[in-house]
Amino acid sequence: MGRWEPDAKLRLRSAALDLFAAQGFEQTTAAEIAQTAGLTERTFYRHFADKREVIFGGTEFLLEAGARAVADAPEGATPLGMAAGAVQAAGEYFPEERREYSRRRQVVIDANPALQERELLKMAGFAGALRDALAARGVPEPTATLAAETGRTVFTVAFAQWIADGETRSFATIATEILTALRAVA
Amino acid sequence: MGRWEPDAKLRLRSAALDLFAAQGFEQTTAAEIAQTAGLTERTFYRHFADKREVIFGGTEFLLEAGARAVADAPEGATPLGMAAGAVQAAGEYFPEERREYSRRRQVVIDANPALQERELLKMAGFAGALRDALAARGVPEPTATLAAETGRTVFTVAFAQWIADGETRSFATIATEILTALRAVA
Repeated sequence: MGRWEPDAKLRLRSAALDLFAAQGFEQTTAAEIAQTAGLTERTFYRHFADKREVIFGGTEFLLEAGARAVADAPEGATPLGMAAGAVQAAGEYFPEERREYSRRRQVVIDANPALQERELLKMAGFAGALRDALAARGVPEPTATLAAETGRTVFTVAFAQWIADGETRSFATIATEILTALRAVA
Repeated sequence: MGRWEPDAKLRLRSAALDLFAAQGFEQTTAAEIAQTAGLTERTFYRHFADKREVIFGGTEFLLEAGARAVADAPEGATPLGMAAGAVQAAGEYFPEERREYSRRRQVVIDANPALQERELLKMAGFAGALRDALAARGVPEPTATLAAETGRTVFTVAFAQWIADGETRSFATIATEILTALRAVA
């Protein structure tokens, strides 16, 4: 492994977002991304199945972290409490050092309807994973789906606020506040 | 206007769903749909911009009905009360005689990931329309988004139940029950 290998993935991500933002997602090739990052196309494909995965590579983590949090929730936790715990667990994917990257990623998504649909599908998958995990804990319908969809809502609203201009609070703090606001709304 | 013109749109819809279910959405052309319905392709295009609109033609109605319900809600209505009223207003698009059609439509969507993404986008549009209408009523953020997303959740869960096998209750009755369940979850 060469001197720069450990951060190759980060460099590829950053180069990809620069190119996506400058010339559009559709117009950018894996070869260009690798070249801009000063790496080979082969290295690109060692880290990403395709350029779409640069944007959506973390999806599996989110789903697994959310489902695991539900599975590991204490006995007696409420369905929404378990869903909220899943949001906090998924939020561990968004530490401070990821915020600027997430902002740049959102700019790319906002400019591309196909990526917006994919992002919606990702979040529907998150809600589906929570629903299945809640069902496995014995939560009946429609409660499992409602708690899971509410968790999805808390996640998406908290995430949008986390990457808002000038926002400095942590994802966890914002998610807690959004959950409180949602309880007040209901 | 010929003898069969008034029900041409219904016949085209039914023929389209038969073909989509039998041979797949992608594999079906507007010409085939028209032919199966015993009508000309020109007649098809007088009723639908393309075959996708056979599936998603009612989207504008849903968004407008929802937004209008929020705009017309009484003074003092709560944000979630306004969102729930929007769901009921949108539900007027789902009278009993539409249920079987909606079931057949769902079979087509469930078989096609691109249509699933489009359906998610439609419901995101519904939530966005509610949010904008709530904001116009002076509801601040994040409350407007949370009430709108909660309305979306009630709508999608109620709709899925309305088209479930053996379900006979009205959309309005189911939506009221789902809203009550959601309040209990929160």
